[in-house]
Amino acid sequence: MSIVVVGSVAYDTVETDHGGVAEALGGAASYFAIAARFFAPVSVVAVVGSDFRPEHEQLFVERNIDIRSLERRDGETFRWHGRYHEDMNKRDTVALALNVFQGFKPNLLPDQRTCDFLFLANIAPELQSWVLSQVKSPKVVAADTMDHWIANERPALDRLLPKLDVLTINDEEARLLSGEHNLVKAGRAILAMGPKSVLVKRGEYGVLQFSRQGMFAVPAYPLEEVVDPTGAGDTFAGAMMGFLARNGRLNESVLRTGVVYGTVVASFVVERFSLERITQLTWEEIDQRYRAFIELTDSHHSRWTSQS
Amino acid sequence: MSIVVVGSVAYDTVETDHGGVAEALGGAASYFAIAARFFAPVSVVAVVGSDFRPEHEQLFVERNIDIRSLERRDGETFRWHGRYHEDMNKRDTVALALNVFQGFKPNLLPDQRTCDFLFLANIAPELQSWVLSQVKSPKVVAADTMDHWIANERPALDRLLPKLDVLTINDEEARLLSGEHNLVKAGRAILAMGPKSVLVKRGEYGVLQFSRQGMFAVPAYPLEEVVDPTGAGDTFAGAMMGFLARNGRLNESVLRTGVVYGTVVASFVVERFSLERITQLTWEEIDQRYRAFIELTDSHHSRWTSQS
Repeated sequence: MSIVVVGSVAYDTVETDHGGVAEALGGAASYFAIAARFFAPVSVVAVVGSDFRPEHEQLFVERNIDIRSLERRDGETFRWHGRYHEDMNKRDTVALALNVFQGFKPNLLPDQRTCDFLFLANIAPELQSWVLSQVKSPKVVAADTMDHWIANERPALDRLLPKLDVLTINDEEARLLSGEHNLVKAGRAILAMGPKSVLVKRGEYGVLQFSRQGMFAVPAYPLEEVVDPTGAGDTFAGAMMGFLARNGRLNESVLRTGVVYGTVVASFVVERFSLERITQLTWEEIDQRYRAFIELTDSHHSRWTSQS
Repeated sequence: MSIVVVGSVAYDTVETDHGGVAEALGGAASYFAIAARFFAPVSVVAVVGSDFRPEHEQLFVERNIDIRSLERRDGETFRWHGRYHEDMNKRDTVALALNVFQGFKPNLLPDQRTCDFLFLANIAPELQSWVLSQVKSPKVVAADTMDHWIANERPALDRLLPKLDVLTINDEEARLLSGEHNLVKAGRAILAMGPKSVLVKRGEYGVLQFSRQGMFAVPAYPLEEVVDPTGAGDTFAGAMMGFLARNGRLNESVLRTGVVYGTVVASFVVERFSLERITQLTWEEIDQRYRAFIELTDSHHSRWTSQS
């Protein structure tokens, strides 16, 4: 089943202690779509400026990612410039220019309105609700959010939350949204705000999943080097949603496996700057690391001991 | 099979933002022995002063923990006074008095010299080696260490490491010992120093295990409240070694399950101050939380889907 994702397509400039990249393709919808496409068809709803480069359009086209709703407007594409600290869990925004993204209010195409899987990437909650209202009867609606909306658009966010099957949120945002420092309390408090499940992203410490069926904890895939954490959360969401769409349903078991695939694909994206690594990624590499991840977290070490 | 543990028995004063406890029983050997005793017989090798209270001796005796080598000397028992930050991963030592622990150089009893499982808690590496040299042919030797010895007793520590089956070490100490910030690099570098396996303790983020068979990552059991992190690492080591001793052997599969039991029992000890919680703990509670932990980390959600 196919997925519709609404969010940003951007040009990112990223600096770290070990290098950087300028004007690279980024934006939540880009990371999400390329990750999800390993699992299911994806339709991108976004806006870019007249400066959007053909080779970047090509990255979507050659993967058969539907960009009929990648709107082009006069002006410049959304730009973000960030600088990571030595501790890569921290970053500063050096510059941010919404450009053509300002005033973005997409109307879905008729076939997008009957999609089964909808991902509302990190945009204003009012806009997320606007898009959601156009979809007839989605099977799974997931959304991301950020500190800015939690602090400044809380009523709109509160209205959206009960409509979600899955909310993805990072640890600091979960604390901000819930007012609870402890992540178990925070996750449960957010669950009580309406979403059927909450995925708390903890960066290098993995993901904590909260649902009515209980908690699920996965570590991140341990890496020797993280080059650029940008887009890890959106890549995680893309692979996770992709797996759900490929299965055509959402239950606790499918969600857990989706979270593992999300973790696995996200572990690749941070190995290089921007989309470099996942645009080179093969299904065989995903499959191999998925097996390594199962082995990594298998408390019974069943590779050596079980029959299966 | 039985375990010998060598380490401190102390009186701890602990302060947190939410309360504290004064002159409570503590010390690595106390936490270790009480946790290990759920799984196997334990013999404690330590020293206390003339102020050591009968009710604390009773805590060991009533569990049938062997304290023939809990030496008594004139003077005061080791005292530690710590204060935790709001972020409980950080603490300051307010005061520390070795007292009778100074000059501690134990001679094992004849039956202790033939023990199969030996745990060298966090004491000077020279002293750890001295104890180890008295044991004939141990099956499993594990040790803990700390920043102080890494910084000041490195040659003695380097001589000890190749003799260890298991080294337990926290994340900051692993970075200090290896000179690597990245924990995967740090774990592998320490493995190259000689121990057959390295368990990197990451507090609320769980444990990363390194061995020649590969890596194993477990999250901590997510708790709504942590009252006092003191002794969590020693409790982890106690339950882990206890499980190994109960199984009578060490292989990758047994070690992984031991790490999970260590994680589970450690999750209880931090729920209250000092030894309050694990001295009240029952096997049924451990078993219940072990099952909850397997469920928590089961990416296939097999409770509902598997045959086993």
